Amino acid sequence: MEETEKLGAFFKPCSVAIIGATKKIDKAGHVIFRNFANNKNRGVFKGEVYPVNPHEDSILGFKCYPSITEIPGELELIVIVVPAKAVPTIMEEAAAKKVKTAIIITSGFREIGNAALEDQIAAIAKKAGIRVLGPNCLGVYYSKTGVDTLFLPETKVLTTGDEVVATPRPLSGDIAIVTQSGAFGVAALDFLAGRQIGISKFVSFGNKCDVTESEMMHYLLYDKETKVILLYVEDIKHGREFLRIAKKVTLKKPIVALKAGRSAAGARAAASHTGAIAGSDKIYDAAFEQTGVIRARDMEEFFDTGKALSMQPPAMGKNIGVLTDAGGPGIMAVDELVSNGLTVERFSDATLQEFQRLKDQSVLPKFAATSNPVDLTGSVTDDMFEVAADLMFRAPDVHGILLLGLHHLPGLREKYIEGVAKVAAKYSKPIVMCDIGETEMALYTRFRFDKLGIPSFPSPEDAARAMYALVSYGAYLQKNGCADEYLCEFLKRRSKTQPVL
Amino acid sequence: MEETEKLGAFFKPCSVAIIGATKKIDKAGHVIFRNFANNKNRGVFKGEVYPVNPHEDSILGFKCYPSITEIPGELELIVIVVPAKAVPTIMEEAAAKKVKTAIIITSGFREIGNAALEDQIAAIAKKAGIRVLGPNCLGVYYSKTGVDTLFLPETKVLTTGDEVVATPRPLSGDIAIVTQSGAFGVAALDFLAGRQIGISKFVSFGNKCDVTESEMMHYLLYDKETKVILLYVEDIKHGREFLRIAKKVTLKKPIVALKAGRSAAGARAAASHTGAIAGSDKIYDAAFEQTGVIRARDMEEFFDTGKALSMQPPAMGKNIGVLTDAGGPGIMAVDELVSNGLTVERFSDATLQEFQRLKDQSVLPKFAATSNPVDLTGSVTDDMFEVAADLMFRAPDVHGILLLGLHHLPGLREKYIEGVAKVAAKYSKPIVMCDIGETEMALYTRFRFDKLGIPSFPSPEDAARAMYALVSYGAYLQKNGCADEYLCEFLKRRSKTQPVL
Repeated sequence: MEETEKLGAFFKPCSVAIIGATKKIDKAGHVIFRNFANNKNRGVFKGEVYPVNPHEDSILGFKCYPSITEIPGELELIVIVVPAKAVPTIMEEAAAKKVKTAIIITSGFREIGNAALEDQIAAIAKKAGIRVLGPNCLGVYYSKTGVDTLFLPETKVLTTGDEVVATPRPLSGDIAIVTQSGAFGVAALDFLAGRQIGISKFVSFGNKCDVTESEMMHYLLYDKETKVILLYVEDIKHGREFLRIAKKVTLKKPIVALKAGRSAAGARAAASHTGAIAGSDKIYDAAFEQTGVIRARDMEEFFDTGKALSMQPPAMGKNIGVLTDAGGPGIMAVDELVSNGLTVERFSDATLQEFQRLKDQSVLPKFAATSNPVDLTGSVTDDMFEVAADLMFRAPDVHGILLLGLHHLPGLREKYIEGVAKVAAKYSKPIVMCDIGETEMALYTRFRFDKLGIPSFPSPEDAARAMYALVSYGAYLQKNGCADEYLCEFLKRRSKTQPVL
Repeated sequence: MEETEKLGAFFKPCSVAIIGATKKIDKAGHVIFRNFANNKNRGVFKGEVYPVNPHEDSILGFKCYPSITEIPGELELIVIVVPAKAVPTIMEEAAAKKVKTAIIITSGFREIGNAALEDQIAAIAKKAGIRVLGPNCLGVYYSKTGVDTLFLPETKVLTTGDEVVATPRPLSGDIAIVTQSGAFGVAALDFLAGRQIGISKFVSFGNKCDVTESEMMHYLLYDKETKVILLYVEDIKHGREFLRIAKKVTLKKPIVALKAGRSAAGARAAASHTGAIAGSDKIYDAAFEQTGVIRARDMEEFFDTGKALSMQPPAMGKNIGVLTDAGGPGIMAVDELVSNGLTVERFSDATLQEFQRLKDQSVLPKFAATSNPVDLTGSVTDDMFEVAADLMFRAPDVHGILLLGLHHLPGLREKYIEGVAKVAAKYSKPIVMCDIGETEMALYTRFRFDKLGIPSFPSPEDAARAMYALVSYGAYLQKNGCADEYLCEFLKRRSKTQPVL
């Protein structure tokens, strides 16, 4: 636990030095220093910021130091952006200075065959008790303290002279990103920022000569802001450590893993990327299953699963109610649920009778299909969705709801969005939704559902896969006897954070 | 062929009557009539337009007729929007009037058990030689002639009073949509319009009491504007007809099928949707494989495959070159290619030597991985992508290129987009690309590539699946000895339509 606490200095250091800071605008050492300088000036970063460069007196108005040994006071974090061969000397100085943590951005180590150089810096760090992220990584982004070691500038200037958002930093939220690939990491930030999904912490660990994904997950287990961990890995070197820690974490917080290098050709590519030696993919499958880690099958499922788990409670069974106003997409959702091992069973007689009553009373369309899926047909209205969702939530044999609210039908407006959210808030079962389309009303509908805590997806299959993750995680928690505890925590949190309807 | 030609009246009728036209704004009969009235007034629809309603004298300034028998001159198309029980009488009148084609929007037939009523109208049509789309369908949308029988209004007014785009009509383009599900059909329009992908024709055929998906595909085979057919079906009733026609069409134009109702639960849902009796899913798999129809595994793959096939030539082999500036996403792409049965083989010695020469000359980064995937690393520049792509296109053992141009890296701007498009235009091999992100520069990058004819995708796996479709279709054409002819036609078309670079 003590070692885990030490990792805190990566996220909230009292002081940081950027070694290799420069005035040259295109350089990583400039972008990273500027991030800290700006955040310091804006009052977001509250610690001390020191540029280190023997050739400059000051950078962006901050006094520059020739080496870290000249910096007054203690140093909690150093960020290293100098060429690989200079890194051991810096690390020796860091050891002398009793630095707590180091982020080594520099590449040119194990991933290109320079394993000896990497081992050398790892040995220095170990002896001095310095915890290291990297080398060959992007480091940390944490919006609340203003720690931002990403050398990818937020905006770019096109040849036209236009400045556009290039590497956005997402808002703060519930999801932690822990990634071996830096490039995939920033791509994730770009994706999540665009979809308005917030993150708690971002950690890119690259060659992981010291701090592993497992240790980082252990740290995040105790991080109050993190509710879900998204983990991108190309290999896991310390299998036992991973099994032990992942098992512990997943009882409290879901871990979603995207493990690249499944194929032999992919593994070969991974070896030259982060020096990863992946081994058999089946071993990873087994390790993930054993520890309750949810393995995403592709990028989209990775993000979608994270979104669903952060917004909705897990399902306590695998029978799903499908509620739709569009027959075709309803069938597509059913197909995908079933192909993931879930069921879409005909409702109990009691539920069917209640539906019949609603049809007899003309609350629902006379010709609506109601045996699961429930298809409200082209006659759908906002009220019908609310009534039908409520009835389905009440059905004891329905463990979660997949709602297809295609906005195109004439009688449907946007009133039902709040209505369904109100209904869903009464129950502890999960609901996910889909609307199809890429123009105004589709984007608006999905955005509103997201804001009300009901995760929305652009295709029936995406929604079905998200529900599958909620079912898988629920089953794992139940098997390990901690479903009630998790659900209780989740509902407590939801009642606190839910927007007032 | 003669029967096929007759279907032309659905798309370019000299005269159309809307039976059930009304002034009531929320009604399907109003929306459909208004579509024609507006398109007539704007000079897009050049035929005669007749509203039919015994209770009105005129609608939107058009003289209204009590029945079609009172309409002067011949009628090529009628659109029926009256209740189910009134449809047989209308059809009898249509027979007397010698109407060529009828679109029956009305539902309440086989899909809810009223098979007899449906058989009755089918018999009247058959006897009179009237070709029928529907019932229980949305009919036709064809931008060039202004035929638009979609009763889903283009915009909706929210409760706030704001008017937003709800069911957009896409621009004209290369892709035909042929769909059994109307709701999925309009969702497709919404998706494609938002992604700025144009369509040639849209046909929703619902219960298909007369015109089948197969006949429609046969019509589209001879439609010059259609290059790719996207087919959504829940069942195919006339198997032999489908096999015969699909086999003929796919030699000239790719067909991509999304067959819903794969699962037993999904098939049950389909039965109550369009009265579909799907039968075993394996039979469909076999039929599609035998006829060269590419089966999409989900909605996104359906659209992505259509996009790729409309923009790029098929691949004449299955070995793919992966070119990336981001290691992780490169590995993800390789994994997905391989899991689809494609290969990402180490380049030949000759190609490797050329890459080495470029590295020695500092044209490419010294530490770039170049054995396939080619990873230009964080040091990437626009020029490097062009040079590397050219070399990979030249390699005889590379049959297609998957480009991952993650825009986040500092040295990459947007110049390479045109550069790569220029390189690609020199070769007859396909290229697909991916950039990850949902904010400005990612959207801009993907949009630009699309406009230059290189299909872009938001995830590595989506791009890999699109490439898989290009390889599958290429293999089918080769097996059937018509790859050269198709490729020749494709390249001729590309040289005519390619934007000037």
